[in-house]
Amino acid sequence: MNLGANYLEDGRCEFLVWAPQADRMELKISGPPDQLLPMQRRERGYWRAVVEEVTPGTRYRYRIDGEKERPDPASYDQPEGVHGPSQIVDHRRFAWEDGKWHGMALSEMVIYEVHVGTFTPQGTFDAVIPRLKELHELGITAIEIMPVASFPGERGWGYDGTYPFAVQNSYGGPEGLKRLIQACHREGMAVVLDVVYNHLGPEGNYLWDYGPYFTDRYRTPWGEAVNFDGAYSDEVRRYFTQNALHWFKNYHVDALRLDAVHAIYDFSAKPFLQELAEQVHEFSLGNSRNCLLIAESALNNARIIRPPEIGGYGLDAQWSDDFHHALHTLLTGEDLEYYIDYGHTGDLVKAYREGFVYDGRYSHYQRRRFGASSADRPGHQFVVSSQNHDQVGNRMLGDRLITLAGFEGAKVAAAATILSPFVPLLFMGEEYAEEAPFPYFVHLGDPDLVAAVREGRREEFSSFHHTGEPPDPQSETTRESAVLNWEDRHEGRHRAMRDFYRELLRLRRAHSVFSRQEKENMEGFGLESQKLIWLRRWQGAREVLCLLNFSEKVAECAFPGRRGPWRKLLDSSEGQWYGPGSELPDRVEGKCRLKMAPRSCVYYDLE
Amino acid sequence: MNLGANYLEDGRCEFLVWAPQADRMELKISGPPDQLLPMQRRERGYWRAVVEEVTPGTRYRYRIDGEKERPDPASYDQPEGVHGPSQIVDHRRFAWEDGKWHGMALSEMVIYEVHVGTFTPQGTFDAVIPRLKELHELGITAIEIMPVASFPGERGWGYDGTYPFAVQNSYGGPEGLKRLIQACHREGMAVVLDVVYNHLGPEGNYLWDYGPYFTDRYRTPWGEAVNFDGAYSDEVRRYFTQNALHWFKNYHVDALRLDAVHAIYDFSAKPFLQELAEQVHEFSLGNSRNCLLIAESALNNARIIRPPEIGGYGLDAQWSDDFHHALHTLLTGEDLEYYIDYGHTGDLVKAYREGFVYDGRYSHYQRRRFGASSADRPGHQFVVSSQNHDQVGNRMLGDRLITLAGFEGAKVAAAATILSPFVPLLFMGEEYAEEAPFPYFVHLGDPDLVAAVREGRREEFSSFHHTGEPPDPQSETTRESAVLNWEDRHEGRHRAMRDFYRELLRLRRAHSVFSRQEKENMEGFGLESQKLIWLRRWQGAREVLCLLNFSEKVAECAFPGRRGPWRKLLDSSEGQWYGPGSELPDRVEGKCRLKMAPRSCVYYDLE
Repeated sequence: MNLGANYLEDGRCEFLVWAPQADRMELKISGPPDQLLPMQRRERGYWRAVVEEVTPGTRYRYRIDGEKERPDPASYDQPEGVHGPSQIVDHRRFAWEDGKWHGMALSEMVIYEVHVGTFTPQGTFDAVIPRLKELHELGITAIEIMPVASFPGERGWGYDGTYPFAVQNSYGGPEGLKRLIQACHREGMAVVLDVVYNHLGPEGNYLWDYGPYFTDRYRTPWGEAVNFDGAYSDEVRRYFTQNALHWFKNYHVDALRLDAVHAIYDFSAKPFLQELAEQVHEFSLGNSRNCLLIAESALNNARIIRPPEIGGYGLDAQWSDDFHHALHTLLTGEDLEYYIDYGHTGDLVKAYREGFVYDGRYSHYQRRRFGASSADRPGHQFVVSSQNHDQVGNRMLGDRLITLAGFEGAKVAAAATILSPFVPLLFMGEEYAEEAPFPYFVHLGDPDLVAAVREGRREEFSSFHHTGEPPDPQSETTRESAVLNWEDRHEGRHRAMRDFYRELLRLRRAHSVFSRQEKENMEGFGLESQKLIWLRRWQGAREVLCLLNFSEKVAECAFPGRRGPWRKLLDSSEGQWYGPGSELPDRVEGKCRLKMAPRSCVYYDLE
Repeated sequence: MNLGANYLEDGRCEFLVWAPQADRMELKISGPPDQLLPMQRRERGYWRAVVEEVTPGTRYRYRIDGEKERPDPASYDQPEGVHGPSQIVDHRRFAWEDGKWHGMALSEMVIYEVHVGTFTPQGTFDAVIPRLKELHELGITAIEIMPVASFPGERGWGYDGTYPFAVQNSYGGPEGLKRLIQACHREGMAVVLDVVYNHLGPEGNYLWDYGPYFTDRYRTPWGEAVNFDGAYSDEVRRYFTQNALHWFKNYHVDALRLDAVHAIYDFSAKPFLQELAEQVHEFSLGNSRNCLLIAESALNNARIIRPPEIGGYGLDAQWSDDFHHALHTLLTGEDLEYYIDYGHTGDLVKAYREGFVYDGRYSHYQRRRFGASSADRPGHQFVVSSQNHDQVGNRMLGDRLITLAGFEGAKVAAAATILSPFVPLLFMGEEYAEEAPFPYFVHLGDPDLVAAVREGRREEFSSFHHTGEPPDPQSETTRESAVLNWEDRHEGRHRAMRDFYRELLRLRRAHSVFSRQEKENMEGFGLESQKLIWLRRWQGAREVLCLLNFSEKVAECAFPGRRGPWRKLLDSSEGQWYGPGSELPDRVEGKCRLKMAPRSCVYYDLE
């Protein structure tokens, strides 16, 4: 039985809601005239009603114990926002044409993270569609959509959603999202959807009235933790596992990105994440479609991506923040907050070879030893990026890497990420050197909450040694500042950056050293004094030497490859990529000294 | 470097204490005259002082930031109680004579749980010693000592200790414990020590003044959780891992029983328990002594006892509450609180064959699916009992199983436990049918705490459908009521019970079906309508049929064994065990009907 309002085979609509502590539940269907229908109690705290004649688009609420009228926790649509009634959606009606689409393996993915509200001036799903073809031609194979579950107001990042089954109306609602996914699949692109299972937003969260969805046994940074291991947690888990399956079933998404799983507090013998993975993979097998789960995790614990046979939870992949931080600090020299733990060339080499940098090493930021080794996990289980909504947006001004590391630095970052043995993720716009910031913004209705968010942002950055004030998160202009300047992509250095990305993505596909994510076939070394890294990578008889110069000076070094001859594959400092020009030879045979431009990278292929 | 006050090779005494947030630390040595010595700051928040001439028995405190004078968190002795000064102990002085003792394998252990304060009228370690020989001759191979870390007052269970490295003075202090352990080893018996790492008691807990030992991110039933995974947790972990090693090194204990590990909240990638197991096993290897860790865990998660290679934490064994509850409910018919989840013959059969009964099954008590399978773990990794301090003492009146299930029932319980494929644990006195209760008692100094504990006990049992009041936990007579009536053991049914235990323990050692803890070589069945269980167990060519009748009626059934002939090994209803007499044949060949006395068990051996 599915939660929410679902049409049965015979056209009747079944309403199912979990309210284990209620004595009476009624379904109130909006009229005119309004109808109040009794619901029947089912086992384990569920309540059910079946309605004969009700059309999609009808609005409804539940009435709890004859008193509170509340939207459906599993509402598919909140057309009037988070405080309004729920609306019936008939998911069978959408004309899917992607029957031949069977999903995508992680190893094929190049992910492009999109915030629907700022990717285009319109800020809608439909407005994304015309841009897909170009992205695909560039080499992007998957779109990752930041959370769309209904959140308060007209704009926001989406992580404070309160209707995990619904789709933000200002983006275009359920139909809009389906059209976008349909278009992606038509284009041959996969869709990753960002979902938040660690908390629900504070505004418009009526789950408290229904049942013990939350627990006070643990604390999260965002309020009370979801009840994943206490009394009644089976049904709380079911709410979220059904949610995951809902996106795969009704929206044909290909993967879910699970937000901040480190805030899913769960000490049970069979953790929620493991149960979720089992159910999603069972669905995947049963439907001959690749359905994947990718976790954002700050635990540095590869247990979550190991198979259950060796004690893992069986998720498919996870983000590697260590990779980002190691790369970011080499490019920016930043050392505040968590960046204090990175900044050495050896960190990035370790990230390349093992995944996690912090594998039990002492973290000065956390003031404890942190993490455990992930060296046993294959490269395709890690999603890496040189920037993403978090790393950009959590800065006071939301500045992108290009603002911090410059054009040449951004090219090194792109190469380091795309030609890594991991799954690369691009943040929308980085491919053409977009400079619009991505600051934090909300659109809350509750003035107390608005004040709290403003104060929170101010406080956060008072400790970050910043001068100035963060942009007002509630202001419409803050969102507007984040809208991409998409037309720029054809011009000058923007165009050169796109060409560079295209070439990187082509190499990643075409060159066997890059096309397989085998981090084992690699050796590397960091020349700390020069901020220079070299990596030797191989696949069968093929071999590539990668040199990355992160310093702002010319780097001089002996060519680290043996044998030869070597042919230059890619050189970021060349004029064709809008670089300052290169002094590196096209071909190397025998001993040779290299002189690399500041912030540049070069790749040599063994002939 | 060791925490606490430790003599160096050259006879000087080194004081080491962790106080990461202090600006100044001083060592105050009690005189006359008192001496105040400065301490030097070391890395990671430690402070050190070395004193030239100071004798064992000298008392001291630390002075924090020139203000608070506090006992040592790693004090080895608190001769004036939890609020008094710490006292220097020279652990090198004890004349150990157990150089040939190398510990004991779990498979050899038959554990006898002792509460030092009530095992004898004197309530001391020394008073235990004269009883060891007799216990060993009965077949007991290991003594488990309830917590001895210094706790408030003169009496208590010991779970609210506040000096994990010290030894309760009213029991006889450090020397007393060493003498007891020496005597055990001389007798050929191992020692298991119960230690509490999940919280510290509320009275006499000065750790707050020293550093972030606790966290408010999680809640325990007993107050704030220990900080095992937050900032500074490396040193908090070190405090407890050093504590474990302290008992193995300075006291020659053979195993630690880790109290309630489910209240050790820890989401780190390398959990504290895994780190503890590594360090203890490293010590074990380095010293050619078997040093073991046995967890009390309510998680039903075999991960904690799996080896790290398959994702486990590597502890050696754990208690199986499921076994107890399944057995207890069959014998008593109780169904309140957590007993609601048990009571079927199939539960006990499952416990025998797999370890955990709750392996993901829905628990009505917990209102969620609970646990994961432990079927892959060998029998010697589970410690089972038909009663223990918790199961007896957590009852309002502290009544033992014999009070609830009667003499015949207690014999069935003994057989079920001792002839299980697990490590049996006996609660002191059960071997001679002791009837003294074991109620909860304390001896606190703080009147508010006394009132809170009294109220807590009253509240706890108001919900347990009890009539009457629990005994006053603070009263001396409550402790006195728990003192064993040791002299009874020679008389009548008490003596018969001892003889029965002796025979069970002999069978466990001598019969190859029982001497190996192979729960795989077993099939079983519960006849629910008759409350009868039969188990067939084998080892090589040997085979035993076990029949347990839990009902209060005569049970009639066909002899469930094939082939034959079968010879009766043991029959609890026989007169020699003070039973009502048996109608069961000594020998069975071919088909046969059995008529088992109420609450009885019989074991047949394939000839």
